[in-house]
Amino acid sequence: MFEAAELGQKISKEVFKKEEPKLRQELLSAQYELKKQSKFPVVVLIAGVDGAGKGETVNLLNEWMDPRYIETRAFGLPNDVERAMPPMWRFWMNMPAKGRIGIFFGHWYTAPILERAYGEIKTAELDAALSEIRHFEKMLYDEGALLLKFWFHLSKKLQRKRLKKLAADKDTAWRVTKTDWKHFELYDKFRKISERALRESSQAYAPWTIVEGMDPEYRSLTVGRTLLDALKKRLKNPEPPKPMLPQLPAVARVKGKRMLDTLDLTRTLTDKEYDKQLTKLQGRLNLLLRDPACANIALTLVFEGCDAAGKGGTIRRVTQALDARQYRIVPIAAPTDEERAHPYLWRFWRRLGKRGTFTIFDRSWYGRVLVERVEGFCAESDWQRAYTEINDFEEQLHHAGNITVKFWLQVSKDEQLRRFKEREATPFKRFKITEEDWRNREKWDAYQNAVNDMVERTSTELAPWHLISSQDKHAARIDVLRVLCDTIEDALKRARKRK
Amino acid sequence: MFEAAELGQKISKEVFKKEEPKLRQELLSAQYELKKQSKFPVVVLIAGVDGAGKGETVNLLNEWMDPRYIETRAFGLPNDVERAMPPMWRFWMNMPAKGRIGIFFGHWYTAPILERAYGEIKTAELDAALSEIRHFEKMLYDEGALLLKFWFHLSKKLQRKRLKKLAADKDTAWRVTKTDWKHFELYDKFRKISERALRESSQAYAPWTIVEGMDPEYRSLTVGRTLLDALKKRLKNPEPPKPMLPQLPAVARVKGKRMLDTLDLTRTLTDKEYDKQLTKLQGRLNLLLRDPACANIALTLVFEGCDAAGKGGTIRRVTQALDARQYRIVPIAAPTDEERAHPYLWRFWRRLGKRGTFTIFDRSWYGRVLVERVEGFCAESDWQRAYTEINDFEEQLHHAGNITVKFWLQVSKDEQLRRFKEREATPFKRFKITEEDWRNREKWDAYQNAVNDMVERTSTELAPWHLISSQDKHAARIDVLRVLCDTIEDALKRARKRK
Repeated sequence: MFEAAELGQKISKEVFKKEEPKLRQELLSAQYELKKQSKFPVVVLIAGVDGAGKGETVNLLNEWMDPRYIETRAFGLPNDVERAMPPMWRFWMNMPAKGRIGIFFGHWYTAPILERAYGEIKTAELDAALSEIRHFEKMLYDEGALLLKFWFHLSKKLQRKRLKKLAADKDTAWRVTKTDWKHFELYDKFRKISERALRESSQAYAPWTIVEGMDPEYRSLTVGRTLLDALKKRLKNPEPPKPMLPQLPAVARVKGKRMLDTLDLTRTLTDKEYDKQLTKLQGRLNLLLRDPACANIALTLVFEGCDAAGKGGTIRRVTQALDARQYRIVPIAAPTDEERAHPYLWRFWRRLGKRGTFTIFDRSWYGRVLVERVEGFCAESDWQRAYTEINDFEEQLHHAGNITVKFWLQVSKDEQLRRFKEREATPFKRFKITEEDWRNREKWDAYQNAVNDMVERTSTELAPWHLISSQDKHAARIDVLRVLCDTIEDALKRARKRK
Repeated sequence: MFEAAELGQKISKEVFKKEEPKLRQELLSAQYELKKQSKFPVVVLIAGVDGAGKGETVNLLNEWMDPRYIETRAFGLPNDVERAMPPMWRFWMNMPAKGRIGIFFGHWYTAPILERAYGEIKTAELDAALSEIRHFEKMLYDEGALLLKFWFHLSKKLQRKRLKKLAADKDTAWRVTKTDWKHFELYDKFRKISERALRESSQAYAPWTIVEGMDPEYRSLTVGRTLLDALKKRLKNPEPPKPMLPQLPAVARVKGKRMLDTLDLTRTLTDKEYDKQLTKLQGRLNLLLRDPACANIALTLVFEGCDAAGKGGTIRRVTQALDARQYRIVPIAAPTDEERAHPYLWRFWRRLGKRGTFTIFDRSWYGRVLVERVEGFCAESDWQRAYTEINDFEEQLHHAGNITVKFWLQVSKDEQLRRFKEREATPFKRFKITEEDWRNREKWDAYQNAVNDMVERTSTELAPWHLISSQDKHAARIDVLRVLCDTIEDALKRARKRK
C-alpha cells in the first residue's frame, strides 16, 4: 500500500508559486462558507512517519486559512484528569463545533499503533481497537461531521536521511527527539502495523489519504487540494448525509410477549417492612461506598421511567444514604445551543464523572431512542443507529472502570392517570404536571414499544437494564437500592480478585 | 464575635419534629420556584470549625430539597490542570447556573485562612486576599447571584468533646483525621484569624451567618430558616439587584486631549522595510517562545479594534511565526445560552489557557465596555462596574503567571470608509462587511469615547493597553510583533531573575 507513496513525486517551486495563491483563495472562501452555514464540523486527523512534514503542513493550512476558526490540538500523555476518564473523553471534549475545523495531532489511532509496535498488545487487540474506531468514525459521519485522515509517508531510506538532515541543522535539531530515533529503529514494524490499521479503517465515509512526504511543495498542494475538494463537495450538500440502512437490532425481536410484559406490577410492601428494608439497604450502600476500592471505580446510575413513575423520589432515597460531597446528579433536559452544535453523545460525555465519583443521570442518553424517537425529534435512521452507538459508549465506560447501572421505572397506564390527577389536586405537586405529560400519555403505546425495543437492544452484560415495577413506590425504592448494592458489591469483589 | 454563638442554644426533638415538615415543604416550594424562574443562581458557602456539623447540615439540605438541582462541590487539593490555572478558576468552573443552588465546601476563604494559620502568609496578605474576595463577591451580587455564607462554630471545649466522641465511635471514627487534630491544636489562632476574615468580608450583599454547631436540631433549623428567608425574599423580586452607585473611574479623566488623540496615524512603512522587519520579528518571536521558561507562563493576547482595522490579518502575522500546536485562537461572538446563565466573565474564564500555552482572544471581555455599552446591551451600572471587575480579573491572571498583552487597533473614520467600500467591491471580501458594520459606523464618536474610557481605566501596569495605529496595516503588524516580543523578553528576564 505504501509503495504507491514512494514514487518520488515532485512539484517545482515555480508551479507551486503559481498554484498556491489560487488554492489559498479557494480554501479561505470554502472555510468562510463553512462558518456561514455552520451545518457540520470538519475533523482532520494528521498521522504518519516522523519527519514527513506533518507539522509543516498543518502550519501551512493555518496560514492559508483563517486560523481563528481552526482548532489545532496536539495530544501528548494524558494529564491526571484525563487518566481518570475513558481514553476517548479528551477527544470528545475537543470535538470542533459545527462550522469549525478541528485538526488532531495525536488521536484515536496513536495509542493502538504505538502499543502494538511496542508489543504491549496483540494483533487481535489491535483489530478490536480498530473495530471500535470504525464504529466511532461511523457515528461522527452519521452525525454530519466531514472526516479526513492524512497519513504522511516516507520510505525508510528517506526517513533516515530526513531525520539526519534535521538533526544536523542547529535551527531544527530540537525537533528530532530520542523517541523519533527509537521509532525509526522500529520502522519495519511500524510500517506493517500502520498498513493494517489504515486498511482496516479506511471507509467511504472516513477515507485515509496517504501523502508522499518528501517534497514540501508536492505534499502541501496534495493535502490542500484534497481538503478543498472534500469541503467544496460537502458544502454543496451540507445537510447530514443520507441515512444509511438502519442497523439490525442487537437482539432478535420476540413475537408476542415483550420485556415489559414480564414485569410483575402487583408486588407491594407494608410500611413496616419498607422502613426496615430502607434503613438496612441505605446503611449497606453507605458502607459499600466507603470501601477504599471505590476510588478506582466510577459509578454511573441511569434513571429512566414512565412520567410520574417516581424517579425523583427514588433518586432521593439513594442519595439519602450518601454524603452530598460524594455524588452528583445530572438532570437531563433539552440540549443547549452548544450541545446542539456537537454530536449527540457529546452532552453526556461532558457530564461524565471521573473514577472515584458517583454520578446519577436523571434521564439520559436514552432520550434518543425514547422521547426523540416517539416525538419525531430525530430521523428514524438517527435513533436506529443510536442503539449501537450507546452500546459502544457504555462499553467504553466499562473498560475505563465504570459501573453503569440502568433502571427503568414502570407503572400501569391506570396508575399513571391516578397519579396525574393526584398531582393536579395537590397544590405543591401541581408544578410537576404539565400539558406535555398529558400529550405524552396519549402516545402510551408508542412509548411502551420504544422501551421494549430499547431494553432488548441495549441491555448488555456490561450494562444491563433493570426493569422495576413502580406501581408501589415503596417496593420500587427497595428494589432499586438492592440492585444497586448487589451490583457494587459484585464490582468490589471482582476488583479485589484482580489484585 | 463568636461568643454570641456559644450560648448553648438548643431545640428539643419534639419541636424539631413539628417544625421540620413545614420548613422542608417551604424549602422545596421555594426551590422549584427558583428553578421555574431561572433568573438567578444561589451560592452557599459552608465554612467553620471541624466537627460542628457542616457535612450533616449539607446532607440535610440535600434531603429536604430536590438534590437534582443542587450542586454540592467539595474542593480538596487542586489537580494538575487546576494548578496550571489561576486559583479562582476551579470555583468559576463550578458556578451554578441561574435557577440552581451551588453548595461549596472548600472555597475562596479556605486557602487564605489556612495559610495565615500556618504562618505561610502575613496579616497584610490575608487582608489583601480578603479585599480581593470582597470584589469578587460584589461582582457575584451585581451579576444577580444570591450569596449566603454559613460559619459553623464550636467553643474550644466543645470541639475537643465532639472530636473525641466521633473518634470513639467505630462508625464515625473515619471522619476524624490527623489534620482535624492538627487544626484543633491551632484553635486559638484559627479563631482569631477567622474572626478577622468574617469581619472583613461580611457585607450587606454577602452576609456571614454564624451557626452554633453543637445541637443538631438547632443548627439545622437555623440554617434551613436562614436559607428559606433569603430565598423567599429574593424570589419576590428576582431581577438582578438595583444598581449600586457606579464605581469611580480608575484614572481621573483628562479634559481636552484623550488617549486616542495621542496616536500618530501617519506612520507608514515601505514594502521592503516591512518584509525585512516581519521576517526578523517573526523569527525573534519563534525563538522566544521556544525558551524552556515559557512552560511556566500563560501568554494571553487580547485584540480589540475598530471595524476593518485589520485584527484578523494582524493575528495571522503573529501565528505565522508559531507552530499551530502552540497557540489557540478564541474568537468572541455573541454568548451562548449556557454563557448567558452565568456571570459575565464566566465565558472568558472557561476559555483561558493554562500555564505553558498561548491564547489569542479575537475580541474579549472588553466587549462589555465597548459594544455592550454603546449598543445598550447591558445597563449603565453593569458596564460601569466592569472596569473594576476586569482589572481584578487581569490581576488574578498576572498573579498566576499570566502575561496579558492587550492591543487596540485604530484607523481614522475616513480610512474605515475606504476599507468598507473596498470590501464591498471585492467578491471574496464581501462576506466581511455587514449591515451591522455600517450601523456601528454611525456611532463612531460613541465608540471612540468608550475606547478612551476603557484605556484610561483598564490600562494597568500588570496589563497595559497598547494603542496601535493601523492606518498603515503593515506598520501595525510590525508594531504589534515588536511589542509582543519585547513583553515576552521582559517576562522571561524577570522569570530568570526570580530563580
